[in-house]
Amino acid sequence: MHILLTNDDGIFAPGIKALWQSLSAIAQVTVVAPDSERSATSQAITVHHPIRVDPYHIENSSVTAWRIGGTPTDCVKLAIEALLAEPPDVVVSGINHGPNLGTDVLYSGTVSAAIEGALHGIPAVAVSLDTWQPFDFTPAAEFTRKLILTMMQNTLPPNTLLNVNVPALPPNRLGGVAVTKLGVRQYQNTFERRADPRGRLYYWMGGDLVDNTNDPDSDIVAVKEGKISVTPIHFDLTNYAIMDLLRKWGL
Amino acid sequence: MHILLTNDDGIFAPGIKALWQSLSAIAQVTVVAPDSERSATSQAITVHHPIRVDPYHIENSSVTAWRIGGTPTDCVKLAIEALLAEPPDVVVSGINHGPNLGTDVLYSGTVSAAIEGALHGIPAVAVSLDTWQPFDFTPAAEFTRKLILTMMQNTLPPNTLLNVNVPALPPNRLGGVAVTKLGVRQYQNTFERRADPRGRLYYWMGGDLVDNTNDPDSDIVAVKEGKISVTPIHFDLTNYAIMDLLRKWGL
Repeated sequence: MHILLTNDDGIFAPGIKALWQSLSAIAQVTVVAPDSERSATSQAITVHHPIRVDPYHIENSSVTAWRIGGTPTDCVKLAIEALLAEPPDVVVSGINHGPNLGTDVLYSGTVSAAIEGALHGIPAVAVSLDTWQPFDFTPAAEFTRKLILTMMQNTLPPNTLLNVNVPALPPNRLGGVAVTKLGVRQYQNTFERRADPRGRLYYWMGGDLVDNTNDPDSDIVAVKEGKISVTPIHFDLTNYAIMDLLRKWGL
Repeated sequence: MHILLTNDDGIFAPGIKALWQSLSAIAQVTVVAPDSERSATSQAITVHHPIRVDPYHIENSSVTAWRIGGTPTDCVKLAIEALLAEPPDVVVSGINHGPNLGTDVLYSGTVSAAIEGALHGIPAVAVSLDTWQPFDFTPAAEFTRKLILTMMQNTLPPNTLLNVNVPALPPNRLGGVAVTKLGVRQYQNTFERRADPRGRLYYWMGGDLVDNTNDPDSDIVAVKEGKISVTPIHFDLTNYAIMDLLRKWGL
C-alpha cells in the first residue's frame, strides 16, 4: 500500500510526523506538505504564482518527502499529477492541530486536501485533534492506522472521504467511535477592530464559538462526549431537492 | 432591498462594476470586495494576519464601498459582522471573469463568498461569465437583476444559494435559462515543470480541460448549448447515504 500524506499545519508540524511514524508500519509513505502553516486555506489553489517544490529529508526513515510552497490542495494535485510515478492508494491529511467540525470543514485546508484526493478517485481521510494546546498525537495516529486498514478491507464508495476528529483525551478515557454527521458551528464577535502603530485601521478575525449544537448525531456532540468522530463527506454541492421548485420560477 | 456585493477578481474588475450599476436600480448596494484579484481562493479566510479595510469612493454613485485586504469570504464575514449596521437582504458575488462550473466550484472564491452569505442565513447568488477574454458584462448583470427580483418574489429554501453561469454570447443568441446540476470537470497535464533564472525548480499549475461531461442536465452542457445555467447549491457535506454502511465496519 502506498499512502500520500499531507497537512495544512506544514511539514514541520508534530501532527504530520505522528502520522508518518504510525503509517510507515503498514505502507510506503510519501509526504508532500506545505513548507509553512496554511490553515484556513480551504480548497484554495495556486494558479497565478509558481509553486516551489523541494525534496525534504526525514532522518532514520524510509519516507520520501517534499516541502511545497503552496496550499494543501496544491500538494495533493502536485503529488498525483507531477511528483509520483503512480497514484497513491490512499490520501491522508493531518493530523490537524485543532478540530475540523461541522460547517467549519468548509474553511479547512486539512479536509480540502482529502477532498482533492477523493476528486482524483482515491480513498481519503482527514484527521484532526480537538485541541490547540500541546498534546500527544500518538493515539490519533494509531486510530488513523487502524481506520485505514479497516477502510481497505471494506470499500469506501466513490466520491467520499472520511473526516475524523479525535478528542484530546488520554487513550483510556476515549469513549469509542461514533459515525456522525456534520453539525453547525456559529461564531460571534468575530472581528476585532484595531489601529496599527501608525494609526491606520485594521481588523483581526477572532470569534467566540456559539455552542448551539445539541444534535446527538453530530460530530460536535460526539467529540464533546469523548468519542472519536468519523463523518463521511461528499463534495457534490448540487441541491437536487429544489431543482423542480426553481424550474417553476419561470426564469 | 439592501444588496451586499463582492467578487474574487477584485474591486477594480469590470464584472463587479457591471453589477453595481445594474443592481443600483433595484436596491441599495454596498460593495465589500478584495483590493486585488483573489481567484481560486475557495473559502479561505484570513485568521493569522490583520485585514486592511479602506473606504472606496465610487464616483457618480450612491453605492457605498470598501476595499479589503483579504479573501472574498473575508469580505462577506467582515461586511455582515463588522461593517454593516444590519445584515443585507441578499449577497451577490461576481460577475466572475471566467466560468465556475461543475466540480470547479470547490476552488471558486466567487461561489464561496455566496456560500458564506447562505451560511449567515442570507439568500445568495454567485454569477460568472463563461470567458476569460474581454467581453460585455451587461447582459449577465441584467439577468442577475431579474433573477434577484424573481428570487425575492419566491422563497429560496434555507442553506441554499444559486450559482449562475452566463455564456459569452450576444443577448440575441442566448438560448434561455436552464436549471442544472453541477457536472464534473477534469484536467490533464496540470503542472508545467520549469527552472527559474537561477536554475532552481518550480512548477506552475496550468491544465487542459478534459471535456468529458455530456450529462444533459449539467451546468457544463447547458452553457455549451448557449443557455444561462442556474444551479442550486447547498453546503452540507455529510454523505448521509453511507452512514449506516460505515457503522457496520465495526470501528
